Amino acid sequence: MSDQSFKKRGVDYPFARGHRTLPGKYYHDAGIYDEELEKIFYKFWILACRAEEIPEPGDFKTIQVGDESLILTRNSGGNIEALFNVCSHRGTQLCVEPKGTFKTKTIQCPYHAWTYGLDGKLIGAPLMNEGEGFSKEDCALPKAHVHNWEGFVFVSLAEEPELFEVQMEALMGKFSEWGMADLRIARHIEYKLDCNWKLILQNYQECYHCPGVHPLLSELTPFQSAQHDFSKGAVIGGFMDITKERGSMTMDGEAAAPPVCDVAGDDLQRVYYYSVFPNMLLTPHPDFVLFHHIVPKGPGSISNHCYWLFDPKVISDEKAQERIQSAIDFWDMTNRQDWQVCEQMQVGTKSKRFTRGYYSGQEDILVALDKEVLKALGHDDPK
Amino acid sequence: MSDQSFKKRGVDYPFARGHRTLPGKYYHDAGIYDEELEKIFYKFWILACRAEEIPEPGDFKTIQVGDESLILTRNSGGNIEALFNVCSHRGTQLCVEPKGTFKTKTIQCPYHAWTYGLDGKLIGAPLMNEGEGFSKEDCALPKAHVHNWEGFVFVSLAEEPELFEVQMEALMGKFSEWGMADLRIARHIEYKLDCNWKLILQNYQECYHCPGVHPLLSELTPFQSAQHDFSKGAVIGGFMDITKERGSMTMDGEAAAPPVCDVAGDDLQRVYYYSVFPNMLLTPHPDFVLFHHIVPKGPGSISNHCYWLFDPKVISDEKAQERIQSAIDFWDMTNRQDWQVCEQMQVGTKSKRFTRGYYSGQEDILVALDKEVLKALGHDDPK
Amino acid sequence: MSDQSFKKRGVDYPFARGHRTLPGKYYHDAGIYDEELEKIFYKFWILACRAEEIPEPGDFKTIQVGDESLILTRNSGGNIEALFNVCSHRGTQLCVEPKGTFKTKTIQCPYHAWTYGLDGKLIGAPLMNEGEGFSKEDCALPKAHVHNWEGFVFVSLAEEPELFEVQMEALMGKFSEWGMADLRIARHIEYKLDCNWKLILQNYQECYHCPGVHPLLSELTPFQSAQHDFSKGAVIGGFMDITKERGSMTMDGEAAAPPVCDVAGDDLQRVYYYSVFPNMLLTPHPDFVLFHHIVPKGPGSISNHCYWLFDPKVISDEKAQERIQSAIDFWDMTNRQDWQVCEQMQVGTKSKRFTRGYYSGQEDILVALDKEVLKALGHDDPK
Repeated sequence: MSDQSFKKRGVDYPFARGHRTLPGKYYHDAGIYDEELEKIFYKFWILACRAEEIPEPGDFKTIQVGDESLILTRNSGGNIEALFNVCSHRGTQLCVEPKGTFKTKTIQCPYHAWTYGLDGKLIGAPLMNEGEGFSKEDCALPKAHVHNWEGFVFVSLAEEPELFEVQMEALMGKFSEWGMADLRIARHIEYKLDCNWKLILQNYQECYHCPGVHPLLSELTPFQSAQHDFSKGAVIGGFMDITKERGSMTMDGEAAAPPVCDVAGDDLQRVYYYSVFPNMLLTPHPDFVLFHHIVPKGPGSISNHCYWLFDPKVISDEKAQERIQSAIDFWDMTNRQDWQVCEQMQVGTKSKRFTRGYYSGQEDILVALDKEVLKALGHDDPK
Repeated sequence: MSDQSFKKRGVDYPFARGHRTLPGKYYHDAGIYDEELEKIFYKFWILACRAEEIPEPGDFKTIQVGDESLILTRNSGGNIEALFNVCSHRGTQLCVEPKGTFKTKTIQCPYHAWTYGLDGKLIGAPLMNEGEGFSKEDCALPKAHVHNWEGFVFVSLAEEPELFEVQMEALMGKFSEWGMADLRIARHIEYKLDCNWKLILQNYQECYHCPGVHPLLSELTPFQSAQHDFSKGAVIGGFMDITKERGSMTMDGEAAAPPVCDVAGDDLQRVYYYSVFPNMLLTPHPDFVLFHHIVPKGPGSISNHCYWLFDPKVISDEKAQERIQSAIDFWDMTNRQDWQVCEQMQVGTKSKRFTRGYYSGQEDILVALDKEVLKALGHDDPK
Repeated sequence: MSDQSFKKRGVDYPFARGHRTLPGKYYHDAGIYDEELEKIFYKFWILACRAEEIPEPGDFKTIQVGDESLILTRNSGGNIEALFNVCSHRGTQLCVEPKGTFKTKTIQCPYHAWTYGLDGKLIGAPLMNEGEGFSKEDCALPKAHVHNWEGFVFVSLAEEPELFEVQMEALMGKFSEWGMADLRIARHIEYKLDCNWKLILQNYQECYHCPGVHPLLSELTPFQSAQHDFSKGAVIGGFMDITKERGSMTMDGEAAAPPVCDVAGDDLQRVYYYSVFPNMLLTPHPDFVLFHHIVPKGPGSISNHCYWLFDPKVISDEKAQERIQSAIDFWDMTNRQDWQVCEQMQVGTKSKRFTRGYYSGQEDILVALDKEVLKALGHDDPK
């Protein structure tokens, strides 16, 4: 990573002079939210889960994407499937548990016992005769497309999605030194928030708010050190310097663990921040990886799931627990500081007297984020 | 009953080959729900209460039908009235109690003391002078039409409803052996459910789900024994065999009480299931009668009231209580098994990937139910 | 006051013969409610708070007007400002506390630390360079207009409101004997109610309901004694006689305190009732002043804030507390009696069978109130 070319935010890059924010309706209007579901969340590649959460054939996790529920499961061949959680017979939701294991390696509808394989094929429909309008083949569960990148499972609900590598071009080849596929979840916290999903991405992509909102973070990584490499596409980010030698983002600023995998050189003194549009925030530290999984529930409502990934050897080391906790405490505190201002921005932007705000040079990435949203929706730049 | 001609479900009747379910929007769309209120619940004869619930002049029960509240009361002549629960003066709801007695044999508005007779006529309006735009006669409470069938009080909110005997043609003459008018409520349980009202009717009219959902019911009355007599109109149903001699639907399968009234012959070994469109499920057993009263609250929300009717002599016999309880326990358990799958079907049918499902031959009655709904709404058969 | 000319309700005034109420949709329709926000609450002068609630520069109170939040604060010059509570930078709500003090005499956004003076001027925007689309002058907080009348702070959210003295013409010069600016809040109770805001005004402006709803009030001030002076505009009201010599509205009918300020003569035996359209009810008694501040939350939802104002010397007199409490208890009881029937009217008017009700002569003021609403909305008189 560290050999890539970055530019200093607000310095090498021209200030975002004259750039205005989105109008307030983009955070409140039910029609725009529905459009976002159709044109972004039901179409783009989006984060679904970690592969480690469904390690064995038959293990499953259910996730919600807008009005759609998906069953993420591993089939008998060891591949991950993303099946729409709705029986072809009469539309019953097949699986209500958030996670578990299909012990019989089949998925059976609780209503009329129609039974599907882990690949979604209908293998049992009691008393149904094929022919004259019914064939088992037609009744396979619809599937979403699946792509595993570094242990992160992405899905696309589109019939024919763009290539993962095209949407995620800016992510390709990045972060291989972290060996993320081999990291494991040390902790997961779900935050239920009263704000629009885009406010979380905006909050993540600028540190103009850090001096006031995050005193400790600002001490560990001064916001003036921010550099970024955004250029094209929806994956955008950069890094900030960790001032303390061998430091990290913890309550005392010391590392929580030894460097992960092959992380070395400049990367030992950097925290990277990448927003993987539309629903993932990826934050590799030298010693662990933080990520957020944003699940929109409505124009002004989300679940924001935060995960801490560590080397499995560290997770199983009893003596390491206190340091892991220090990383969790730091980001849980920092998260909550951010959620407070995001929720206040949600409320304020409802005012009819808020037309469009003003971006500072420190918020130039947000101009790019807004453009991605407008492009995805096919909306003209608002006047 | 037992001398009527029935046909064996899925055997004598042709399978419902190629029949598809309603599209998912029929369970979720607010516009369709409003249409259902207008064209079905505000127009058809619908179940309102049991006559025994308002035995004496002045006794009342209030019920909700969509946005309308009705006061069911017995007037001085002993006839049942169904009065709109809204004062003609300024629109105040007259009566907020679910049931009680108008001790003065009048209904007085709590706001300005306008007073109505039990027949809805305005008999007192303090300080109001007749003439010039106001006459007491114009200010009688609007009434719904009332019909008492076997102790069940039906109402129609239409100005000019179809004849009760026409809408309920298939019910005429049926079940006289049960002497239902003389039965009494032994128990009432209200279930608040997150599903569309039609899913309850559909669930009631097929036993394809019984082997998986109701193990005990399936043991007492095998689903293959189902026969039905549906032919025309909205009252449709049939029966299932009780395999145990002198058995019934109780926790141990033994009868809960002696046969009701004149029930004899084959009827001693049958449970009948009739859906009385749109809001009643009638289930006569040899020894008691079960019925459900469905009250829609929104596209995805209902109250479902279940009642157990027994011979009043059984109800007042202390030694009979344990057997009554066994019938209550059986159906309470069975109800809850059904509600779970109905609520899962409600969630699942919201998916855009659920277009229309497939009916099996065991679900042929549901094809008829769906047709009644579409006919009532004036909708074409969906493509 | 007492030398003004009043007319006896339902006697000197012609009965409101043939007058009908508003149709039910005026209490339920979301579109009409939105129109009311636009054309009434965002345009008229409305009650905001008491000046005494923000006594010193930097003290503030936040209030909600429809979707808008306002910060009421006192600037360094001692004048009251009403600032829209939304940061010009990106729309964040500046202040979430219901009241408090800006200790630094500035208002700082919690997100990116943009800082405003107490007059709303932007005085600090870190790292922002003026020019090319950004100027501090353009970024002052929008203001609502402010008018202090007798210690009551009114605001108008209109860009160019009507003169306060024009909208409130009927209030000018009234009640000067009470010296209301010098009274202080002895108690505040918030009532959260499920009814439309207009039902509270209607309830307040007729005593036709008093005999049935308020037995004690009717004993202290017979409804037949009501006289009023409404003539034009939205401020309408009158008085009722206090029958007991030196009495007032308390649990035992005795005065709660000595007469306020210069109240004398006939005013010692009167309670005045003025509805100050659209959101204030003003009720001067000989010995204290009651007022209600109505905050609409939706078509069928309000917060109704009731305040008791007394002479500050009485408030600080320990021996006077029991008498103050008697006034609070009386009106709290009377309030709750009113809310019950208002909430029942809200429910009842939803019925499709309620078209338009009938006003009695005792309700003639309500005809005037309805006309004000229709005029403000630009609606024709409903048929």
